[in-house]
Amino acid sequence: MGKNRIEAFSDGVIAIIITIMVLELKVPHGETFQALAPLTPVFLSYALSFVYLGIYWNNHHHMLHTCKKVTGQVLWANLHLLFWLSLVPFTTGWMGENHFSAAPSALYGVILLMASIAYWLLQQSIIVVQGPDSLLKKAIGGDWKGKLSPVLYIAAISVAFWSQWISQGIYVLVALFWLIPDRRIERTLAVKGS
Amino acid sequence: MGKNRIEAFSDGVIAIIITIMVLELKVPHGETFQALAPLTPVFLSYALSFVYLGIYWNNHHHMLHTCKKVTGQVLWANLHLLFWLSLVPFTTGWMGENHFSAAPSALYGVILLMASIAYWLLQQSIIVVQGPDSLLKKAIGGDWKGKLSPVLYIAAISVAFWSQWISQGIYVLVALFWLIPDRRIERTLAVKGS
Amino acid sequence: MGKNRIEAFSDGVIAIIITIMVLELKVPHGETFQALAPLTPVFLSYALSFVYLGIYWNNHHHMLHTCKKVTGQVLWANLHLLFWLSLVPFTTGWMGENHFSAAPSALYGVILLMASIAYWLLQQSIIVVQGPDSLLKKAIGGDWKGKLSPVLYIAAISVAFWSQWISQGIYVLVALFWLIPDRRIERTLAVKGS
Amino acid sequence: MGKNRIEAFSDGVIAIIITIMVLELKVPHGETFQALAPLTPVFLSYALSFVYLGIYWNNHHHMLHTCKKVTGQVLWANLHLLFWLSLVPFTTGWMGENHFSAAPSALYGVILLMASIAYWLLQQSIIVVQGPDSLLKKAIGGDWKGKLSPVLYIAAISVAFWSQWISQGIYVLVALFWLIPDRRIERTLAVKGS
Repeated sequence: MGKNRIEAFSDGVIAIIITIMVLELKVPHGETFQALAPLTPVFLSYALSFVYLGIYWNNHHHMLHTCKKVTGQVLWANLHLLFWLSLVPFTTGWMGENHFSAAPSALYGVILLMASIAYWLLQQSIIVVQGPDSLLKKAIGGDWKGKLSPVLYIAAISVAFWSQWISQGIYVLVALFWLIPDRRIERTLAVKGS
Repeated sequence: MGKNRIEAFSDGVIAIIITIMVLELKVPHGETFQALAPLTPVFLSYALSFVYLGIYWNNHHHMLHTCKKVTGQVLWANLHLLFWLSLVPFTTGWMGENHFSAAPSALYGVILLMASIAYWLLQQSIIVVQGPDSLLKKAIGGDWKGKLSPVLYIAAISVAFWSQWISQGIYVLVALFWLIPDRRIERTLAVKGS
Repeated sequence: MGKNRIEAFSDGVIAIIITIMVLELKVPHGETFQALAPLTPVFLSYALSFVYLGIYWNNHHHMLHTCKKVTGQVLWANLHLLFWLSLVPFTTGWMGENHFSAAPSALYGVILLMASIAYWLLQQSIIVVQGPDSLLKKAIGGDWKGKLSPVLYIAAISVAFWSQWISQGIYVLVALFWLIPDRRIERTLAVKGS
Repeated sequence: MGKNRIEAFSDGVIAIIITIMVLELKVPHGETFQALAPLTPVFLSYALSFVYLGIYWNNHHHMLHTCKKVTGQVLWANLHLLFWLSLVPFTTGWMGENHFSAAPSALYGVILLMASIAYWLLQQSIIVVQGPDSLLKKAIGGDWKGKLSPVLYIAAISVAFWSQWISQGIYVLVALFWLIPDRRIERTLAVKGS
């Protein structure tokens, strides 16, 4: 079984998640710019989650690029990742409507943590399929980003009830260092191709 | 006519069904974790239906993999399956919001039953197209899962008004034995390829 | 420019239209089967529109199959068709919630009429691109279905304020004779291939 | 990395944006045509935005057609464009529900302006990847449409608080001159192919 359909399905789900998230940005009743002001935190949380989903789509893309054979385990590891990503609109909406207060900020971290674990599991299941000469394993190397992110999410969850702004700062920080596309895979593929 | 577009369309519909289901998980008004508590049954019913739709997508995938020619009958058998799957979010939401009470639990079984019948009809229409040497027919063999599931759904529907928890237990059980991907088709394809 | 992306985009839009239509089927507050009763007309109108969109997807599929070259005019004729189809969920919901009353039944016909005109325009624009030996032109032949449908829609619209049930009967009738897949194109392609 | 998946993802997102926009057209409670009257501005704003998203999809299509290599920068420039397009349903709904009043009309222009800047950035990032012999650069030539549009959007935003109808006229005008498909790219490709 090829990987085309798993890519197409994942693209579809991520595209829908990223787009229905905008439905939380409900049309206000007033017709002045002042009527938009209460939407500011909802808009900011939308922008943050848009970036996170963009990062997941981007890295998912590079990861599957190295994957030649899709087994049942890879399929379910992928669905498991999509499950946690599908909860992002809910927690984004809750966080935005409550002005980034403590509990929603902590839950946001929990969902990001679960998604990062699910991503790691998917990565491992692809590496297992590829066997000892796994291209993906070489590509990710020490995988410091993948290892550091869950630690930072746990820190952000722990600190949310003390200061939710430090939590938010951590979420922005993690997004920023993932924004740099995963050149490790690109480089490994390039070396292999030459 | 090839099968690419029927795959793409089915993927799109299933991806949307799986994702709009999460819209039933409405953002609560409170900002504490206590505000999330009433959502627990909605979340659980969402998780169950996510697994069911994942199973359908997964098996649909393997089934179409064996199908070389798509006729009008296959197209409509496929749309018939998608029709019943499209009602899953509705019945999931009804079940979740009513804490798995009797009537919603029974209706959930009815929709699963109709979907399993529609799946069987689609399977038969592909076997007919493939003719006497049908690869799919060989692959499914005795098809005990496909035959047992409707029987268990009927049992769950019947028992819902006596104890909805037994019904739910049956739904979880059926999901569990389908979670094991359909290795029959994988194996038959592998044998044929060797 | 190939036709793959126009197919993918149309599939996406039709898949979403067909699926968001189910959102009109709002989860009732009661937990008994009696609470479902008021949803019956909404469910019936959903089923009717599901069939119509399935027919459009099916025939759109066959039509584009004959199309080798996509021009700007074909692209816009296609978007024009998608525009009218995107209004189907709205008019379906209005019709279902008002128990198939006169004005919603008439509007339903208007949208179907506009979609059938848009389909005809798309068909013509593909025939023009294909030139004098147009495969699609041969395939549709006299195109009695395409010519009869708008006439029947106009009849259904006119009669809606006198008896909405005759209108609904006409909509069901037109759906039924389209349900037979467009074998003309299949046959012409088969003849050409032999 | 090929461009197939970036095309598929963009198609998915644009297809969803174009379709969820119709959800703002809420089913009215009355069952007469009079009940539809208040929806007229919502319908008109929907039609305008449908055309704009159609234009973006169409031109995006032609632009990516010239792009052979997708880098991380192109991916993110594309996501940036999709971010602004994803806000179109919100601002369309706000404009429609407030009868094209001043602030919503201005915000509509701001979103179109941001989208046009994002489109220009995506175009530039593709040209950079293609290097000195960029096919896209030749194809767009002077790019008068791309340069004039932002200027007209700024004019429409400025004038909205004085007369929102002039703003709307400008939005319709810009849509009209983009409706003519981007034949420059088609022509350049044709010349190159001959």
